[in-house]
Amino acid sequence: MKVLIVYAHSQPASFNGALLRTAVQTLEQEGHAVRVSDLYAMGFNPVASDADFKERRFEGHLQYDREQKHALAQRSFSDDIAAEIEKVQWCNLLILQFPLWWYSVPAIMKGWFDRVFVNGLMYGQFGRFDKGGMRGKRAMVSTTTGCFPGMAAEGGVMGHLDAMLWHLQYGTLAYVGFDVLEPFVTWSVRYEDDAQRGRYLEALAERLRSLDAIPLKPMHATEEFGADWKLKPGIAPRTFGHGPGPKAPGLQPE
Amino acid sequence: MKVLIVYAHSQPASFNGALLRTAVQTLEQEGHAVRVSDLYAMGFNPVASDADFKERRFEGHLQYDREQKHALAQRSFSDDIAAEIEKVQWCNLLILQFPLWWYSVPAIMKGWFDRVFVNGLMYGQFGRFDKGGMRGKRAMVSTTTGCFPGMAAEGGVMGHLDAMLWHLQYGTLAYVGFDVLEPFVTWSVRYEDDAQRGRYLEALAERLRSLDAIPLKPMHATEEFGADWKLKPGIAPRTFGHGPGPKAPGLQPE
Repeated sequence: MKVLIVYAHSQPASFNGALLRTAVQTLEQEGHAVRVSDLYAMGFNPVASDADFKERRFEGHLQYDREQKHALAQRSFSDDIAAEIEKVQWCNLLILQFPLWWYSVPAIMKGWFDRVFVNGLMYGQFGRFDKGGMRGKRAMVSTTTGCFPGMAAEGGVMGHLDAMLWHLQYGTLAYVGFDVLEPFVTWSVRYEDDAQRGRYLEALAERLRSLDAIPLKPMHATEEFGADWKLKPGIAPRTFGHGPGPKAPGLQPE
Repeated sequence: MKVLIVYAHSQPASFNGALLRTAVQTLEQEGHAVRVSDLYAMGFNPVASDADFKERRFEGHLQYDREQKHALAQRSFSDDIAAEIEKVQWCNLLILQFPLWWYSVPAIMKGWFDRVFVNGLMYGQFGRFDKGGMRGKRAMVSTTTGCFPGMAAEGGVMGHLDAMLWHLQYGTLAYVGFDVLEPFVTWSVRYEDDAQRGRYLEALAERLRSLDAIPLKPMHATEEFGADWKLKPGIAPRTFGHGPGPKAPGLQPE
């Protein structure tokens, strides 16, 4: 398998760095081809702008996603974007390794999505979700958190982990067609000792030795949604974000 | 009232630009003090790094949030971070104006949270959520989307809007203590005519003329969570992310 790891941490001595090295080593031992986009080391620019296009289709007011479509056809993306697109197209499995900051990826990785997940290739008139451009590929979040598991469980103070990661796992990865694997989450590593950190590293290695055994997040097929863009009558929601949300007595649903 | 608008769009001629100008004009007409952080115009750097600290507490491996706490005490943040912290402390109301990219803010705004919502001021040992550093202030998301309202309704293909924005409204704004107002969302503006765009601008102006009338998102008090970090027995979830999620027949809860 061809694996692209996108990595967002500035410090090689961090636990994220250890997780990255474990992933690369394990996957290569298993015979997979591995490439890494080390965003901090690359000095990756996360800010989408008109400099992302070597030529423009429309003068004046920049319409970013329309220029993306043009740049795709003309092969006129800036070199850094073109290089990342090539890597995503190459891989069968995308792994995101990052510390969870504000329930999300660090800005340097957010900008990787903003600039690399381009209109016309990742999604477009052909579709999104199970018709997205990356259909047939898998993606997995691997993240370090500062919270305890109960905080991100049902009713936990952070909200359910699936709610925390909805924008990323569903709104980004599934949106462009990836089959999304269950995330690999480490909890409050700062407060753990070396033995527990070692167990986390071994757990990641074990998971990556059996890629086909990693469960997929439940998803809905786009055919399950009707002309009103909602789940068709009788189809029970299988994902957190498609659920009904709370209906506490005396309150309107949000 | 003192209003800080943080704005993330590179194009003044965009609809986001029109929303910003409407907000500033309306709020000033109403007698409020308004400041704007125009992140693109400022060339704001969204990438957290060791350059954010004029002096370091710990040599070697950068522990970002621990250095934040030190920099707060020593007033040794980089000048750009210090300037933004001052603005957030100044305001009573924070408005975020941005296009929704990947269910989230553009990277340049994500980095504003990463670098400006600092440990020891926004959150810390004193608490978070209703004990967060920004308690007593309000915050509101104002965003432009490429989707139709039904797509982000209950059972909609994008997932519920509250799920889409959970990481931002709950995991970022509420986390640091803001009372979160109902978001102002414009739908598929690209496909709307000038008349509909004008109605959106007028709807924003009308909302901003009566700040006290804007509904708050429902929240849980931290006292409603037990020692296991979960909602205490008998407390029904009032927010999307604290809900139980789907329990479709034959599936385990996610």
